[in-house]
Amino acid sequence: MNKKIIMSQERLLHGGDYNPEQWLDSPDILKRDLELFLKAGINTVTMGMFSWALLEPEEGRYQIDWLTEIVDQLYQKGIYTILGTPSGARPQWLAKRYPEVLRVDEKRQRNLFGGRQNHCYTSPVYRQKVRKINVILAKELGSHPGVLLIHLSNEYGGDCHCPLCQEKFRGWLKERYDTIEELNRRWSTTFWGHTYQSFEQIESPSSKGELLLHALNLDWKRFVTAQTVDFAAQEKKAIRDGGCQKPVTTNFMGDYDGLNYRKFKGVIDVASWDSYPEWHRKPVPQTAAETAFQHDFMRSLLKKPFLLMESSPSSTNWQEVSKLRKPGILHAASLQAVAHGSDSVLYFQLRQSRGASEKFHGAVIDHYGGEDTRVFQEVCQVGETLGRLSELAGTVQKPKVALIWDTENRWALFDSQGPRNAGIPYKETAEKMYAGMRRLGLDMDIIDMEDDLENYRIVLIPMLYLFRGGIGDKIREFVKNGGTAVMTFWSGVADDTDRCFLGGVPGKLTDVFGLRRTEIDGLYEGEENAALPVKDNFLSLERRYTCRNLCELVNVSDARVLMTYEKDFYKDLPVVTCNQYGKGKAYYICADMEQQFYNDFLEAVQKNDKIEKPLPDIPDGVEVTTRESEEATYVLIQNFNADSVNLKLPDHGCEVIYGETEGSLKGLSSVIIKI
Amino acid sequence: MNKKIIMSQERLLHGGDYNPEQWLDSPDILKRDLELFLKAGINTVTMGMFSWALLEPEEGRYQIDWLTEIVDQLYQKGIYTILGTPSGARPQWLAKRYPEVLRVDEKRQRNLFGGRQNHCYTSPVYRQKVRKINVILAKELGSHPGVLLIHLSNEYGGDCHCPLCQEKFRGWLKERYDTIEELNRRWSTTFWGHTYQSFEQIESPSSKGELLLHALNLDWKRFVTAQTVDFAAQEKKAIRDGGCQKPVTTNFMGDYDGLNYRKFKGVIDVASWDSYPEWHRKPVPQTAAETAFQHDFMRSLLKKPFLLMESSPSSTNWQEVSKLRKPGILHAASLQAVAHGSDSVLYFQLRQSRGASEKFHGAVIDHYGGEDTRVFQEVCQVGETLGRLSELAGTVQKPKVALIWDTENRWALFDSQGPRNAGIPYKETAEKMYAGMRRLGLDMDIIDMEDDLENYRIVLIPMLYLFRGGIGDKIREFVKNGGTAVMTFWSGVADDTDRCFLGGVPGKLTDVFGLRRTEIDGLYEGEENAALPVKDNFLSLERRYTCRNLCELVNVSDARVLMTYEKDFYKDLPVVTCNQYGKGKAYYICADMEQQFYNDFLEAVQKNDKIEKPLPDIPDGVEVTTRESEEATYVLIQNFNADSVNLKLPDHGCEVIYGETEGSLKGLSSVIIKI
Amino acid sequence: MNKKIIMSQERLLHGGDYNPEQWLDSPDILKRDLELFLKAGINTVTMGMFSWALLEPEEGRYQIDWLTEIVDQLYQKGIYTILGTPSGARPQWLAKRYPEVLRVDEKRQRNLFGGRQNHCYTSPVYRQKVRKINVILAKELGSHPGVLLIHLSNEYGGDCHCPLCQEKFRGWLKERYDTIEELNRRWSTTFWGHTYQSFEQIESPSSKGELLLHALNLDWKRFVTAQTVDFAAQEKKAIRDGGCQKPVTTNFMGDYDGLNYRKFKGVIDVASWDSYPEWHRKPVPQTAAETAFQHDFMRSLLKKPFLLMESSPSSTNWQEVSKLRKPGILHAASLQAVAHGSDSVLYFQLRQSRGASEKFHGAVIDHYGGEDTRVFQEVCQVGETLGRLSELAGTVQKPKVALIWDTENRWALFDSQGPRNAGIPYKETAEKMYAGMRRLGLDMDIIDMEDDLENYRIVLIPMLYLFRGGIGDKIREFVKNGGTAVMTFWSGVADDTDRCFLGGVPGKLTDVFGLRRTEIDGLYEGEENAALPVKDNFLSLERRYTCRNLCELVNVSDARVLMTYEKDFYKDLPVVTCNQYGKGKAYYICADMEQQFYNDFLEAVQKNDKIEKPLPDIPDGVEVTTRESEEATYVLIQNFNADSVNLKLPDHGCEVIYGETEGSLKGLSSVIIKI
Repeated sequence: MNKKIIMSQERLLHGGDYNPEQWLDSPDILKRDLELFLKAGINTVTMGMFSWALLEPEEGRYQIDWLTEIVDQLYQKGIYTILGTPSGARPQWLAKRYPEVLRVDEKRQRNLFGGRQNHCYTSPVYRQKVRKINVILAKELGSHPGVLLIHLSNEYGGDCHCPLCQEKFRGWLKERYDTIEELNRRWSTTFWGHTYQSFEQIESPSSKGELLLHALNLDWKRFVTAQTVDFAAQEKKAIRDGGCQKPVTTNFMGDYDGLNYRKFKGVIDVASWDSYPEWHRKPVPQTAAETAFQHDFMRSLLKKPFLLMESSPSSTNWQEVSKLRKPGILHAASLQAVAHGSDSVLYFQLRQSRGASEKFHGAVIDHYGGEDTRVFQEVCQVGETLGRLSELAGTVQKPKVALIWDTENRWALFDSQGPRNAGIPYKETAEKMYAGMRRLGLDMDIIDMEDDLENYRIVLIPMLYLFRGGIGDKIREFVKNGGTAVMTFWSGVADDTDRCFLGGVPGKLTDVFGLRRTEIDGLYEGEENAALPVKDNFLSLERRYTCRNLCELVNVSDARVLMTYEKDFYKDLPVVTCNQYGKGKAYYICADMEQQFYNDFLEAVQKNDKIEKPLPDIPDGVEVTTRESEEATYVLIQNFNADSVNLKLPDHGCEVIYGETEGSLKGLSSVIIKI
Repeated sequence: MNKKIIMSQERLLHGGDYNPEQWLDSPDILKRDLELFLKAGINTVTMGMFSWALLEPEEGRYQIDWLTEIVDQLYQKGIYTILGTPSGARPQWLAKRYPEVLRVDEKRQRNLFGGRQNHCYTSPVYRQKVRKINVILAKELGSHPGVLLIHLSNEYGGDCHCPLCQEKFRGWLKERYDTIEELNRRWSTTFWGHTYQSFEQIESPSSKGELLLHALNLDWKRFVTAQTVDFAAQEKKAIRDGGCQKPVTTNFMGDYDGLNYRKFKGVIDVASWDSYPEWHRKPVPQTAAETAFQHDFMRSLLKKPFLLMESSPSSTNWQEVSKLRKPGILHAASLQAVAHGSDSVLYFQLRQSRGASEKFHGAVIDHYGGEDTRVFQEVCQVGETLGRLSELAGTVQKPKVALIWDTENRWALFDSQGPRNAGIPYKETAEKMYAGMRRLGLDMDIIDMEDDLENYRIVLIPMLYLFRGGIGDKIREFVKNGGTAVMTFWSGVADDTDRCFLGGVPGKLTDVFGLRRTEIDGLYEGEENAALPVKDNFLSLERRYTCRNLCELVNVSDARVLMTYEKDFYKDLPVVTCNQYGKGKAYYICADMEQQFYNDFLEAVQKNDKIEKPLPDIPDGVEVTTRESEEATYVLIQNFNADSVNLKLPDHGCEVIYGETEGSLKGLSSVIIKI
Repeated sequence: MNKKIIMSQERLLHGGDYNPEQWLDSPDILKRDLELFLKAGINTVTMGMFSWALLEPEEGRYQIDWLTEIVDQLYQKGIYTILGTPSGARPQWLAKRYPEVLRVDEKRQRNLFGGRQNHCYTSPVYRQKVRKINVILAKELGSHPGVLLIHLSNEYGGDCHCPLCQEKFRGWLKERYDTIEELNRRWSTTFWGHTYQSFEQIESPSSKGELLLHALNLDWKRFVTAQTVDFAAQEKKAIRDGGCQKPVTTNFMGDYDGLNYRKFKGVIDVASWDSYPEWHRKPVPQTAAETAFQHDFMRSLLKKPFLLMESSPSSTNWQEVSKLRKPGILHAASLQAVAHGSDSVLYFQLRQSRGASEKFHGAVIDHYGGEDTRVFQEVCQVGETLGRLSELAGTVQKPKVALIWDTENRWALFDSQGPRNAGIPYKETAEKMYAGMRRLGLDMDIIDMEDDLENYRIVLIPMLYLFRGGIGDKIREFVKNGGTAVMTFWSGVADDTDRCFLGGVPGKLTDVFGLRRTEIDGLYEGEENAALPVKDNFLSLERRYTCRNLCELVNVSDARVLMTYEKDFYKDLPVVTCNQYGKGKAYYICADMEQQFYNDFLEAVQKNDKIEKPLPDIPDGVEVTTRESEEATYVLIQNFNADSVNLKLPDHGCEVIYGETEGSLKGLSSVIIKI
């Protein structure tokens, strides 16, 4: 992304969702908002997402003036607008007149009006109505100098099982498989004799019908993503047809797996997401690492700076407990987004709504309305910091490590029935690998099976159950050419329609890893085993580590064994192995290991591979990331501990451009150096 | 209530629900019942509630004779009848012929026949059929000297989402808001653009549609109450039109919040309720205090004696565990009802049914049928005690303390999304305040926001989130004129359509309490903070108390700080404050404190306010209540401990009219003195 | 069962479910299967259950050849076929063309196509289509010498609430009760005035309608069983009409209570079931005892050898955790089936399917496909063992002890509302009694109330809430004639339409047991009481045993008291009693006692009754069972402990025909002696 594309000026965005339509009868409040925005260093607002009922109060009667006027006023004060399209929440009249726009649930019952993101993505009428309003918005505001970016809809998600979608799904399948025989073969429908005689017999998965054909389930989810992407593309087309050439984004949700976000690559110009970590439930550094994983995932979608589109300046109101963020967390979390590649810190919401379901969500300006609140003061601090860091805008990250995190794999893994229906540690394993690498200060791309591996030195591959997109060949080539692959248990089990590989797994990679899986043991809740180091293993692993949930049994052909099981009937069988293949190394982890294992193991791998860290000594709980421009390299160091830590910066060649350090870094504070 | 209205004689009622229709083919059993009733001192039975199928076995064919005959027979033996109207359970033929009487659930699916209280309250046909049978019952039995009281239906409750109800709801809203613009404004429908263009678009809340417009949810519950009250009023009108002038009641359920029982004030002449505490799950004194709260709530509805309409003489059968009541509990619980203002002890059920869903519910006469059962003997004891306490009938309570417990507030509080979706301690806070005051022997009215405050010395205000009915002004006036208000965290947040107050809260009372709420922190499960006393605080609070769930942060303007937080980033901020306002005092409790705090704090407040206790020393677990007539004052003292406690009665001027005490009171026993 | 009926040769069956239709396009795989079957000693496969879509790919076009060919090929190698009828999973075209075959759920919503066992049992179209294919299969394969047995459908279960079923249900009720008045009387419909005016008003139980008429619920379940049995009978008739005279079975599920399996006695020639114990969750000996209970239940259905129709050679994939079976378990579990009367060890599945929902279920041949797997080797071992035990085929058990385990009682008990809705320990009590007796090496029949008692010495009667089929009289006669009855709390409460007995319980047996129940106390979770021995009781019980969940209070008339309660208000009341009645003894257990009680108590009863054990000393965790032919008696001894135990065989007159023992028996190993 050329940063110029989304900004007429070079600076980090600060601001967030703004709903002036809720206050049109209170001009004093709108005026007060503007004053407060300026005090807080806010330079960007997002508007329009929930304004359809006001923009088109009756079918065909459009009123855009009020919005144009606010965009004008803001622009005059130097505040830019991200313009939302209103498809996420249609007006009441639209649902009443055209019931086909209402979703049908998996039990085949049509919804009533309510909520949001609950329209049928297929409905021709809905697509037409969205198109019309988008064209009009593009015409009226799409070339306004105050408009920075187009924000399609809001948090796309969910599915619809209406007859229109069923029909579309059948067409999509016909396109994919051509003949019903091929579909039957790929879907393994001879099982229980569920063979289809024609495409017309196919229905989407339903708890009232078919749920156990995993390939059907997988393809339905693929179709839902495809149809949603198509809907988004139509929205974008309307924007372009209305004459607007601004870049386009849509806000993704953290850790949402209802859609495969990768497939939006062709539609969006900028990736953006809504970050709502549950601070203080776990230790702060752990929450920071989990949030970092999501940031890196979003940055890796387009491999250029993304936008933090929403975040709470205080508590949320929809989590179980509306926990206040302790002082300093807002600043640290905001800077962390930038450290991982965001060019913005945007909040939901600028002014708290008076009524309805989000009235207790944190906001920059609360119901009280004064500026003498803790939250407002902290937001001002963030604004001030971002103002000082303009040179970071547009800088990028160039990781040497990648972690494969694949949404289609996730779908298949959890749907596959066994080896643990009581819980599959996919996310946990990915996060443990991520955290183990993250603490070394090594940046990572979070990629999927469609990405290339060739630019990385190390690729982490947690629980890659489903193999698709030629990933087997890619891994083979990657290792052969000198890369280091670290793959875990329960990888390479099934193909892209969830049919198991025959003749030995991990699928077609038994020679690369030098072993073959024979069995996998599910452990009951509370059960544990452990891995013990093999004497004089070349990674010098020396500790004992516990494992849980799943323990694989493998038959080693060529691999070297680094650790073995402590007990059970598979005592002394391998837990950790390494195979030299071509110029590279293929590590295999047989069991669901504890975090400490990944910390020690990945550090040993990094040393063995001689990959340099940005700082030699990184204390626990400190995140070190790197952003680069053509001119300079920035190293961002954040202490997520409550207390100070010792910190030694490079002796020469670096300039501290933000923060203070005299051999130590205070709790929740940051320092940025330029090299 | 003039006690003459409900009784032709001055005595406490003893008896309960009786279903002779189940035994019409066993005359020997009916005869045996009568003998046993007389042995047990039973003077009242409730009949007819579930007899519709027998009273009108075919549409339009009425047979009332069998019931009249039983009323006659009982009356001849001195046993009075409470006559139930049968609307709670219609005959099969009615549902089959007129499906509109069957409820539609919130997912818009119509029920089949089954259960009870499952009719549409709006259905014209149902109202007409109920009217007809009520008129006939009134004509046949409404003037019978043996009929004491009319008992409308049975445990009204639930809602119906059928088209008839939807239409009625829209009319009700139109009446309330006049224009759709006003409704939109009051409901904050600009949020998510859910603005209504006309009343016709409005649908009741549904998990298939709209659930997040809190004002819609609130108004729907108000409408359900209004429609149910209207249904009850129609029932009463039919009774009057049939020529019956007997007083009317309907049996309420303990702690039921599906209806706002306050709104029945205009329909019922006597309040009555069904009490089913779960004895022995918690310590007996705690269960007693929680039950006392419900008794006081019911008495406060009409502020005159109420009826304990149902209670179990033994275990229930519908709770998780059918726990037997240990010896003495039945007597203590029965007398407790009287101690809190009941003029009756009535049971469900007199004779256990042979089949169907309540056959294992405790009964005075069980399947065995003999009188040599523990339960029957205990019932006889209760009968004997009640017989000796006739002079209590009609006496009243005149509390100096009130606690505001408001059903509409409860609805809004739990629906509001945040600050703790994992649990809002409304009931717990109210019960802790109640128990803290109750142990001082001070009687309390449990009132709501529509009540006057002026007759009280102290008003307790737990979590009054929603302000309506001018409660802000009432509290201000109350304190200004010398009253003591004790209000907790999360009060005064929103108005009567759940719109937040702007400009500082608690809503319009920041000067009265001398502070302003700034933030509220939700605590995770297991998290705790504590309140520490400020040195030399004027209430002499000296202990440390833990708090959980919710901790408010306030900005004190004028209030004195009595206690402060022990830790977290709000360490040293106020937890307990007191503001002198006018002639009174306004206490504010910022956090969800433990029971011991309320015990010590309320005792300090009572002493500070110089409010006299009925007895100087009241041991833990002993309840002291007071009932008065124009001639005398009765102090009832009940020991809910298993063991004896020391008890010192006033030295002079008092006569022991029930029970024994020589300086001590045995476990589960009572003493009543007359002053 | 004459073993000749199901086998043309005298041997134990070894093999399992085989789905060649999944591999028809891979002839090499089918060929490889055959080789591996022979290596593993497999002599039997089950086929056809899920082949309908292949057998009749279009309506009326049948293709049976492929199956015939495989049956031929297998037979040529000495492998027999159990031929399944395909009614359990219809083709897609059938559901699309005849929607009436799709089940309607209890909320009255019709299913879509999907899953299995989801057809309407009443649908005339479905019955006709099933008949046609069954006739054809019978004609084509029913006389094939390689076909051993006909296997009707697969795991019959579930219910359907469609209009056709409703109509059938009403007819079934009319047959049963003749008049609506009689139904009303028996169903206690005067309760809540739910009296029916005609049979046409009756609807099946529904959460949208009637759920609280327990007699309706009971009769619905009876009807579902009756209709399913009728469906199975129609299937069998089609087989016979097609000219096949082979014996018929259907595979039952372990511990399934959706159907009363007893009622299939008239349809099946051989009982068979699918055994999937969750090994290693509890201690192995306990899982073994629980599995043994199910084996004995299945054997007792026809009181002759049964078939273990399915079992997993490894883990399952549908339980919470796919736990591997540790080495030796497969062999021990397989032999245990034989020890309890099975003439087979059959697995699901022989070859693992590549796709769909059971692809990770354990199989003899897995996706890898080699014979060098742990599982395949263990299967070979089982095959070898079974080959050596041919003489056991057809031998029977002749227990002296019976335990009454009645499905209709189970339905009523759990539906009855009270005394513990939080959990009724029916299964637990039955299993504790069973395990207490089992450890003495005494074989047991698991019978129901329709069985005769006269051939037993001891009858165990856990929680026989509902009395039907003259069980009261049977127990009376049994004891009078010298039998020993051991009955527990909550027995004899209600009649066969769940109406409580009046005038004293256990129903009509108060004189036999010499006591009368007065009350029953539900204990909360965590609550306990205990039984203390009465000094010098004639059974010499000496220990203290805890009890939980339910404690009954009884009034003893004639019985001797052996143990009494330790505490609560019923301290010193009886817990265990014995009454001499006629020539026999009637023991009564008032409370839910711990396992150790049943161990000690039943051993004392056995000694007191002088019933001989097959071995004098049986260590804990060792199962001893006996199978007999006209020529010989076989005692099977299995050690379910991980470690060796001491084992002393009879000094003379016995021949060890399997296993090794020199005074001890190794962990998980077995020895079989012939006397």
